[in-house]
Amino acid sequence: MIGAREKRFMQHAIALSRKGMESGDGGPFGAVVVKGDEIIGEGWNQVLATTDPTAHAEVVAIRQACERLGAFQLTGCEIYTSCEPCPMCLGAIYWARPQRVYYANTKEDAAAIDFDDSFIYKELEVPHTKKKIPLIPMPDQEALAVFREWKEKGDKTLY
Amino acid sequence: MIGAREKRFMQHAIALSRKGMESGDGGPFGAVVVKGDEIIGEGWNQVLATTDPTAHAEVVAIRQACERLGAFQLTGCEIYTSCEPCPMCLGAIYWARPQRVYYANTKEDAAAIDFDDSFIYKELEVPHTKKKIPLIPMPDQEALAVFREWKEKGDKTLY
Repeated sequence: MIGAREKRFMQHAIALSRKGMESGDGGPFGAVVVKGDEIIGEGWNQVLATTDPTAHAEVVAIRQACERLGAFQLTGCEIYTSCEPCPMCLGAIYWARPQRVYYANTKEDAAAIDFDDSFIYKELEVPHTKKKIPLIPMPDQEALAVFREWKEKGDKTLY
Repeated sequence: MIGAREKRFMQHAIALSRKGMESGDGGPFGAVVVKGDEIIGEGWNQVLATTDPTAHAEVVAIRQACERLGAFQLTGCEIYTSCEPCPMCLGAIYWARPQRVYYANTKEDAAAIDFDDSFIYKELEVPHTKKKIPLIPMPDQEALAVFREWKEKGDKTLY
């Protein structure tokens, strides 16, 4: 399953991780989205350059690939990332629905250079109100009414 | 903890959820970022309008607030969202580090209108290679070398 083709795309993702780090854009992370034998999206961490905490390599690459395809899903595509995705990027991957993801460094490797997203994975399992960033429920009739209207909406695009 | 102030901000988030739905931008989700008594970021789901699977209400609001602050963290801020965050948005929230999050509808309410992110929460617990979108390890010496260089980099900004 892993051959010269896959290694070539991964080396591209790793080259982006180095480029982003050297230019000071953010942490040492790179990713590419591949469709067939073509790279249709590439990204590197730009959290510092854009002061955007969501500008992780995978998110940037997914956004670019979707923009190029004019589609909000990456059906049949592959993602190559230089490091195991954090929970945010994993969530983005699920919404984008590529076929598979290849990763080089692990989250333990990331923790060893002080990018500790294993902390976030642990926090996901703690009850909402006990989280370090507490999530506080505020049930609301109007919010539910909007949901009901969506359900009954005739002309909606399902996704 | 929940008073007229909090209810006012939540109603604003809910109004955005309705506005986004009615304009066909995406699903019925809205969010605001609040600092003190000021809304510094607002978002609604724009997945369809922008063909961007990462354009969830919370992500849009966080990006806008960070751009306005010129900072990649939302220290001391609150987020009000019309629905319990999905794993991607929860990850984005952890990276942005607001003080707390208030939510109206639950993920069960979302599942009832066919936005089933509870599926993603379950997938997070499945081993990578067994996931519906498999995550395939490709350990690589060059990827580790980039991590080592980051660790030894003298002029980096830590975050």
